[in-house]
Amino acid sequence: MPHTPAFQELTGRFQRLYRFEHLQAIAGWDQATMMPAKGNDARAAALAELSLLIHGQLTDPALGETIHRAEDEALDDEQRADLREMRRQWEAANLLPEALVEAKSLAGARCEHAWRSQRPANDWAGFLENFREVVRLSREEAKLRADALGVSPYDALIYQYEPGMNSAEIERIFGEVKTWLPGLIAQVRAKQANEAVIAPVGPFAIDKQRALGLEVMARLGFDFDGGRLDVSAHPFSGGTPEDSRITTRYNEADFTQSLMGIVHETGHARYEQNLPRHWLGQPIGLARSMGVHESQSLSFEMQLGRHPGFLAQVAPLIRAQFGEQPAFEPDNLARLYTRVEPGYIRVDADELTYPAHVILRFEIERALIDGEIEAEDIPALWDEKMQAYLGVDTRGNYRDGCLQDIHWTDGSFGYFPSYTLGAMYAAQYFATLRRQQPDVDARIAAGDYAPVFDWLNANIWSQASRWETPELIRRATGEALNPVHFRAHLEARYLG
Amino acid sequence: MPHTPAFQELTGRFQRLYRFEHLQAIAGWDQATMMPAKGNDARAAALAELSLLIHGQLTDPALGETIHRAEDEALDDEQRADLREMRRQWEAANLLPEALVEAKSLAGARCEHAWRSQRPANDWAGFLENFREVVRLSREEAKLRADALGVSPYDALIYQYEPGMNSAEIERIFGEVKTWLPGLIAQVRAKQANEAVIAPVGPFAIDKQRALGLEVMARLGFDFDGGRLDVSAHPFSGGTPEDSRITTRYNEADFTQSLMGIVHETGHARYEQNLPRHWLGQPIGLARSMGVHESQSLSFEMQLGRHPGFLAQVAPLIRAQFGEQPAFEPDNLARLYTRVEPGYIRVDADELTYPAHVILRFEIERALIDGEIEAEDIPALWDEKMQAYLGVDTRGNYRDGCLQDIHWTDGSFGYFPSYTLGAMYAAQYFATLRRQQPDVDARIAAGDYAPVFDWLNANIWSQASRWETPELIRRATGEALNPVHFRAHLEARYLG
Repeated sequence: MPHTPAFQELTGRFQRLYRFEHLQAIAGWDQATMMPAKGNDARAAALAELSLLIHGQLTDPALGETIHRAEDEALDDEQRADLREMRRQWEAANLLPEALVEAKSLAGARCEHAWRSQRPANDWAGFLENFREVVRLSREEAKLRADALGVSPYDALIYQYEPGMNSAEIERIFGEVKTWLPGLIAQVRAKQANEAVIAPVGPFAIDKQRALGLEVMARLGFDFDGGRLDVSAHPFSGGTPEDSRITTRYNEADFTQSLMGIVHETGHARYEQNLPRHWLGQPIGLARSMGVHESQSLSFEMQLGRHPGFLAQVAPLIRAQFGEQPAFEPDNLARLYTRVEPGYIRVDADELTYPAHVILRFEIERALIDGEIEAEDIPALWDEKMQAYLGVDTRGNYRDGCLQDIHWTDGSFGYFPSYTLGAMYAAQYFATLRRQQPDVDARIAAGDYAPVFDWLNANIWSQASRWETPELIRRATGEALNPVHFRAHLEARYLG
Repeated sequence: MPHTPAFQELTGRFQRLYRFEHLQAIAGWDQATMMPAKGNDARAAALAELSLLIHGQLTDPALGETIHRAEDEALDDEQRADLREMRRQWEAANLLPEALVEAKSLAGARCEHAWRSQRPANDWAGFLENFREVVRLSREEAKLRADALGVSPYDALIYQYEPGMNSAEIERIFGEVKTWLPGLIAQVRAKQANEAVIAPVGPFAIDKQRALGLEVMARLGFDFDGGRLDVSAHPFSGGTPEDSRITTRYNEADFTQSLMGIVHETGHARYEQNLPRHWLGQPIGLARSMGVHESQSLSFEMQLGRHPGFLAQVAPLIRAQFGEQPAFEPDNLARLYTRVEPGYIRVDADELTYPAHVILRFEIERALIDGEIEAEDIPALWDEKMQAYLGVDTRGNYRDGCLQDIHWTDGSFGYFPSYTLGAMYAAQYFATLRRQQPDVDARIAAGDYAPVFDWLNANIWSQASRWETPELIRRATGEALNPVHFRAHLEARYLG
């Protein structure tokens, strides 16, 4: 073992940060699931204090010096990868002056707060008043990050969510998808026009939905000694790798959404639950990125969860909770879960139209951050692209148009691509898996998901942040992200 | 407003501590109620890191200097009380050298851990091996605290839990109780020998027990927008004043314990929920002490909860959940909840024999800390006192004797008196309340508990840590703690 005093000091510092982030995760989870209303102000103050502490530790000048010293030490490959991730966290916290961080946080909070009533009121003009400032500050942030990283402003924002990716690459990939997606949607719509789909008849008692969800989680390998399922207004996957907490929300009239939502969050949770234990506490031990995280939830929700073989296994569980219904026939369940219907709302979109929502947002936010358009231009662009990609008319309907998402209200630009990158990674994983193990579909149909879990574990979970995303994907699948797999998956499922 | 820069700096520092303690409280609550087994190591590490942070802020030399400077500033009475409480926290953290704190924490953890298996094995000799070190370090701690405070070693430990109290005073009061308690127990036992008590017949479904508990909490004024009821292995009251979290455990065979446990914890919770909002975040705004806290839970559990008028109101709620049973008649419920039976175990003891368990522990731990006896002497003393106070033979039965409590295993000496001081404060409050409002019993019997809540709020809750305990009691009741009220309460209830 080489003598690495600076690196050793860093591992101690990041171990401490990991512990404070544990408290942040649990207090945040509690806030969304357990906390009564009157606890909110004190919780917000406590979490802000903790953020300040963490930020203070990341901006301690001694940390930067230690990172510089460690870079000259003789480190092995894993240590070097750990140091690369330490540096990323350090840069993210240190690139921006405090005043900008504070101004953006305030402007974002103001814009988001007002948006909560402006969206139902369809008030784009009112929104714009706050949003202009959010855009201005986000551009300033992007510029500073870009200068330091030597990339374009928008790429500098992407770097926070998908290290190794850049907008030219995404533009190339999304551009390719755009050449065939609208046509494919039209083809599938025409095919499905003649298909009968039987809707399940509710109500579906919450406790039975919960029991069903827990059973499906167990079959998907969720470790209940290292995690929980609870309820929150907006479902999420939180907690820590040692204690992974996912949530859902139940609708008495429809169990299918909550059920597939639970499958989705279980994908996130299994990634966290299977991060390698020997790296835990170090930056190298964290999940890779937003896009890779989403590729796990979508491997579960889209690849495995909507697999006809999987749905055939779930059907008897549904019947055991809710009795016999024609809607619960496996073929009908598969039709229910693959119904394609262009609509206004991203979060309600099906697998096939979802990428169109993301591509549209990517194109708009890239142009906005790079200064090619202004906030005022968004509605017209939105209308034009919704018409072009999905044939949907959103004119004058801001509520269900450009005001629908929370992401932009607080300046989280660069996040949207992760959703569709995740879906495409997932399709590429399964293409690889099928090539390596041709019997995988038969095994899934027989209720044996081990090939899927083993593959994900070997190629993604166990790798944590050892590699940047493009290298991780290349090692796992033998090539860079290639939209051909996503297309083949969609054509096989929706036209096959 | 006088110019008080040092004091102002202190309020900022203690506000930050309050926020970190908020996270400590919530993460601790989660650990006991929600956390799955595999989360434990990471949680313990995160909480230890947070304790270290809090300790570091309390031992920052700048804090001590600022306290000294603030003492020379022109403060008003409330600020001076706040400063007194700041100083107490600062002293508690700074009086001991780090090495002693660490050694005691290690020895306590080792002793407690081994105790968990030594107690069921009745292994006093094995326990003694670890316990001697805990005693040695506790004496060292007491000596250091005593030197700084100018009191006796044991008094210095009491000071942590009941500031303003001392062992001479407790000895005088407990000594008086000892003159009449064994005789009273015998008298009551003779009287109850001829009373028929009907036991409720289970099972009692957990969800119904929970519904009953929630209903009783609501009647007792628990604010559900500022707190919760959950389940834990050992019931406790936790959380924060803004978000007060109490727990219980349910036994399907017996609902009466959980029900009265919930009444007890609701008393703790209402104290926290009604601490004055304008002081929150400052040491003056915290609950006064362990004894005063216990006086709130016992005002609820013993004074109000076992009041025949209250039990008559609860009886229909019990019937609504569990149907009709002869055991649910109000008079029978009152007999059930006032049954006196000397036994081995403190936590299972009834209202009348409980003080004997506490007095015994107080006498032994005081002598132990002040060096009059050694750890080896405990079993013989225990046997002798159990025989004298309760007529119970504990010889050779360490498991149900001196090994039964967790408190001594980690060196929490000085805590036990709080339980009985709390019961005596509560009796004195109600004596005062009856003197001031002679119709209070009639109003309780009519289901109107407002006089009780209003009195506690005006005299205790709203006072927070404005006064040290003896002054708080004097202001609330017009006199110092006086065991005559406790005796009168017990005689009226058990012989009346």
